[in-house]
Amino acid sequence: MEQYILKIATNDAKGLIYNISKVLFANNLNIDTNAEYVDPDTKNFFMRSLISGKISSNILEKELKEVLPEGSIISLNKKAKKDVVILVTKEAHVLGDLLIKYISNELNANIKAVIGNHEDLRELVEKFNIPYFFISTKDISKDEHERLISEKIDEFNPEIIVLAKYMRILSSNFVSRYEGKVLNIHHSFLPAFIGANPYKQAHDRGVKIIGATAHYVTNDLDEGPIVYQDVVRVDHSYSWEDMRNAGRNVEKVVLSNAFELLLADRVFVFKNKTVIL
Amino acid sequence: MEQYILKIATNDAKGLIYNISKVLFANNLNIDTNAEYVDPDTKNFFMRSLISGKISSNILEKELKEVLPEGSIISLNKKAKKDVVILVTKEAHVLGDLLIKYISNELNANIKAVIGNHEDLRELVEKFNIPYFFISTKDISKDEHERLISEKIDEFNPEIIVLAKYMRILSSNFVSRYEGKVLNIHHSFLPAFIGANPYKQAHDRGVKIIGATAHYVTNDLDEGPIVYQDVVRVDHSYSWEDMRNAGRNVEKVVLSNAFELLLADRVFVFKNKTVIL
Amino acid sequence: MEQYILKIATNDAKGLIYNISKVLFANNLNIDTNAEYVDPDTKNFFMRSLISGKISSNILEKELKEVLPEGSIISLNKKAKKDVVILVTKEAHVLGDLLIKYISNELNANIKAVIGNHEDLRELVEKFNIPYFFISTKDISKDEHERLISEKIDEFNPEIIVLAKYMRILSSNFVSRYEGKVLNIHHSFLPAFIGANPYKQAHDRGVKIIGATAHYVTNDLDEGPIVYQDVVRVDHSYSWEDMRNAGRNVEKVVLSNAFELLLADRVFVFKNKTVIL
Amino acid sequence: MEQYILKIATNDAKGLIYNISKVLFANNLNIDTNAEYVDPDTKNFFMRSLISGKISSNILEKELKEVLPEGSIISLNKKAKKDVVILVTKEAHVLGDLLIKYISNELNANIKAVIGNHEDLRELVEKFNIPYFFISTKDISKDEHERLISEKIDEFNPEIIVLAKYMRILSSNFVSRYEGKVLNIHHSFLPAFIGANPYKQAHDRGVKIIGATAHYVTNDLDEGPIVYQDVVRVDHSYSWEDMRNAGRNVEKVVLSNAFELLLADRVFVFKNKTVIL
Repeated sequence: MEQYILKIATNDAKGLIYNISKVLFANNLNIDTNAEYVDPDTKNFFMRSLISGKISSNILEKELKEVLPEGSIISLNKKAKKDVVILVTKEAHVLGDLLIKYISNELNANIKAVIGNHEDLRELVEKFNIPYFFISTKDISKDEHERLISEKIDEFNPEIIVLAKYMRILSSNFVSRYEGKVLNIHHSFLPAFIGANPYKQAHDRGVKIIGATAHYVTNDLDEGPIVYQDVVRVDHSYSWEDMRNAGRNVEKVVLSNAFELLLADRVFVFKNKTVIL
Repeated sequence: MEQYILKIATNDAKGLIYNISKVLFANNLNIDTNAEYVDPDTKNFFMRSLISGKISSNILEKELKEVLPEGSIISLNKKAKKDVVILVTKEAHVLGDLLIKYISNELNANIKAVIGNHEDLRELVEKFNIPYFFISTKDISKDEHERLISEKIDEFNPEIIVLAKYMRILSSNFVSRYEGKVLNIHHSFLPAFIGANPYKQAHDRGVKIIGATAHYVTNDLDEGPIVYQDVVRVDHSYSWEDMRNAGRNVEKVVLSNAFELLLADRVFVFKNKTVIL
Repeated sequence: MEQYILKIATNDAKGLIYNISKVLFANNLNIDTNAEYVDPDTKNFFMRSLISGKISSNILEKELKEVLPEGSIISLNKKAKKDVVILVTKEAHVLGDLLIKYISNELNANIKAVIGNHEDLRELVEKFNIPYFFISTKDISKDEHERLISEKIDEFNPEIIVLAKYMRILSSNFVSRYEGKVLNIHHSFLPAFIGANPYKQAHDRGVKIIGATAHYVTNDLDEGPIVYQDVVRVDHSYSWEDMRNAGRNVEKVVLSNAFELLLADRVFVFKNKTVIL
Repeated sequence: MEQYILKIATNDAKGLIYNISKVLFANNLNIDTNAEYVDPDTKNFFMRSLISGKISSNILEKELKEVLPEGSIISLNKKAKKDVVILVTKEAHVLGDLLIKYISNELNANIKAVIGNHEDLRELVEKFNIPYFFISTKDISKDEHERLISEKIDEFNPEIIVLAKYMRILSSNFVSRYEGKVLNIHHSFLPAFIGANPYKQAHDRGVKIIGATAHYVTNDLDEGPIVYQDVVRVDHSYSWEDMRNAGRNVEKVVLSNAFELLLADRVFVFKNKTVIL
């Protein structure tokens, strides 16, 4: 039997779960797993259900709309692989981790293409029979570069765009165009060490723990909703390069954990935060 | 408005959430938070809801019983402090942590009494105006000792009994009498280092991480359902006493986290495991 | 035999370890443990040795000075309990943790006094037969308040002053007076969330991990050399109060770990960092 | 200038550091970093120094021997890449992580060959231009299989042999032949869950944390000296396959961290433990 992931974001109201479950029951659908969350301050309601049965999406969505408050957001996705495009610069560790997982069939994704602003990672990507597109920044404006990248991305119509250590700042135009679709890995425990070379900053500050943060990209650089974070202990004997090396293990695990949450439709964006069900 | 915690454990069936939420809706109750889990292997269904409204417990339980499969377990508790008795031997760190939290009003509990098989901790306990009962093991059988402890416990009719480093093994009789009520802290990352002096065992084995485990006590010593665990990194320079000292910080945090889960009615015991909602 | 802790901070030079160990050998002293660190950028050299034997401090220091580069800092302390004064405001968790450790004889310290700018913690402190001094801020200037605190501190001539959630900002005058002696616990994973109410800040930012930082107090508020940090995972379901409660467990463990490092003479301050040997 | 790593394991004696540093000083060598450890129970002394200068290995070792107690173990290695052979079965995650690090030039190693008892990983290995040797277990005895593997390993004369999820138990003959050279990754937090399918065991036991352990292989299966361990939190909602997937991220990081310690000559084996300097 097919499985679907139903996500609902709305305002809380008495009887919400009753009304939603009534519609599912009436459509003869089974709730395999279910999770809800109500934000106590704003009374926003979030629900994610894995449901199985014979689904007529249009009818189900229509019937749900009828019992939900106005302005509710309903998403209903078949449990299936998502199309993904990855953007990179020069560093291999995050990308490489995704590629190894990909060929081991551990990612619920189709990696359609990797786009780089350098040629460095072409060889690695092509080993895995994935198309690599180099879009140089040379002799063109930032706008023009982003236009070329967008054009290439749009060829593949991805549901998720992963910045796997893509080291260029994206314009608001670009970000708006792919709102809610772009996942970035920042090499610090945000909001500590926003900006350039966080490992050097961490080393200068003498911290005893470093970390990494996977977040949605919004127009506030390094400030989008956080999906996942992790840390690792360091000490005075670490040079900033040692911190970077230790951090790389964290970066790749953080990015791939966050990516898997997105692939499983488990993340809601809410104000500048995420709710993960 | 009063809040109640409703816990249901039953077999999964189509329409379960619909039927439960219908009863709650019909009784004009609001679901403030809700969490479910279905074990994929056994199809056991668990649900914990924080509900608010004017509740008639008998009617609500009766109506829920009518829509639930036979054999369902329903528990409905007012959100309130639980009565607790603590058993100790000689070490102060776990008990002391609970006492400091208690007087800071951070525990949703009434600590009715502390019972010890030594006198060592009387002074500490009495500082906090909590009755301390010393029940010596001297010149009496294990059975007799347990009978005296039981008698004392029963005076206070506690909902939870916390073994805060109580270093005597309890008989099956005792354990059965308080089934599902006794929380223990074991000073190792179970199931590693079952048995006596786990820190010495850990030191001998040369592990690089040590931990602690809070678990329900069952007739399998050190083998009850695990509620919470945590760990801390150590290295070759730690003597076993250093490991014990580092471990004490873990023990007290693990026990108090597990205790808070029990106090909040968040734990279901299921086979030899816990489901925490 | 008596044990001493010898700490040397100097510029690296060829033969440094040879020259130091020659002096110790010539004085018939045994090196029980020894650790060194050389900062690769600045060539600063740090050494901490636990030595045993019959020591004539003056002679040993003089002979060491002769073989060390000019400007070397030598400290030689008998391995013994240090006198400590604790400053508090209203929260009990960090102080309480220290008190429980203290009466369990787990701290290598004499807690001579607790000074508070509120009366809230008097009762707790006096339970442990430690003098509590309330120095009100009412009707007096900040300078005058600090003068009174200093006066009280100086009565006890402590080697370490612990700010166990002392919630007033100290003036540069005060900080300079006790330079290198004041240890603070900040309730965030510095440098994230400097300033007021870090848990509210963390909640607003939607972080997935929170932490605490023990650091020396310098004239840069929340910016002194970090001694120890730790973190704990949180999620969207945590209110800021939940974060604060989870954070309290981290705060007390971080502060007590840092405090034990200071008590063991294991910390060197170096630029705005610490070297821990 | 060339750098060497000097490792000394011996019995503690007064003047040891003095005598060793005297020899280094007399040979005009600089100590760049230095770490010592004395086991308090057995008085075993361990020292690792990174030294630079013009070294005549034979002379240096001879002079050191003269000042050290009889039976001392001295190792002096140029700081350089080590030759490595990797053994695998079917799983790609640990191997893949090493390969990505390898082509990114992050490993201080020459991976000379990968040997598998299945063909599954040939394609992956050959993408990276590393020779892959399939040695089937079909129709041959265990002894014969190991003989063939030994033969192949010996062609490359590796300093380290990494079992990157090699799922066959090695005989004592094999283990003795490569004593102190074989690093294994076990997919549990040893000593918990020794033996087959630790993730299923962990799932059955209902643990809240799982882990992985990198250890030297000795004749006690899953019982060799532990080099590195790490853990990750899980909960009741994890199937054993979810635990395995979460565990894979830990396994690869644990193995690569342990491997880097071996590559940097930082590990001493001592009884059934490791000392890491």
